Amino acid sequence: MTDPRETGTDLNPRFDSAGLVTAVVTDAATGEVLMVAHMNAEALAATLESGEATFWSRSRGRLWRKGETSGNVLRVVEARIDCDQDAVWLRVVPAGPACHTGARSCFYRRIDGGALTRVE
Amino acid sequence: MTDPRETGTDLNPRFDSAGLVTAVVTDAATGEVLMVAHMNAEALAATLESGEATFWSRSRGRLWRKGETSGNVLRVVEARIDCDQDAVWLRVVPAGPACHTGARSCFYRRIDGGALTRVE
Repeated sequence: MTDPRETGTDLNPRFDSAGLVTAVVTDAATGEVLMVAHMNAEALAATLESGEATFWSRSRGRLWRKGETSGNVLRVVEARIDCDQDAVWLRVVPAGPACHTGARSCFYRRIDGGALTRVE
Repeated sequence: MTDPRETGTDLNPRFDSAGLVTAVVTDAATGEVLMVAHMNAEALAATLESGEATFWSRSRGRLWRKGETSGNVLRVVEARIDCDQDAVWLRVVPAGPACHTGARSCFYRRIDGGALTRVE
């Protein structure tokens, strides 16, 4: 059984009940995962049009161009979508730390058993 | 204001209203994003204990050890968690294609404007 969403060439995101898809951002140079966020249709369109990663902030309930205040924008080199079109992968060139804590990546802690170890 | 969840060394995942966190899986050798899935507390514990990526299948409503039928297990080299502990990053060695379509990665299509281009 062929699902056109999986095999086709049409961009047809499968937004969840909140109107969102998951967005994974990696550093185009290093492959490091920098952050995970969410996009509604408007955020995805803005990202593709502007070439700068734009998300939907669930906490603030508004469109959020990453770096709009900090200046740490994420320039999109490539955008991909997964088989069932409910997740987007952005390969980016970051202008600065991606994490609001100042870390290069939000994933700055390794899970070792039940504890966390800082790795950057 | 310091949030112990962000700065601390305790594993304290912030599960959403459905009891899930997002899991991003990358190939430890290449950095390629292979898939995005979800984990409940049981799936995360099983992953950390067994060293094989285990998710919560929302469609099947049960624990899902990746590769349990296909044999394409994902051996975890490193697990990380993000700042607010609602997303996990697994670096893995895949035993075979990660995608159910047979593609190495679920992200086998690039978004070019409004259309998709197959890249693997």
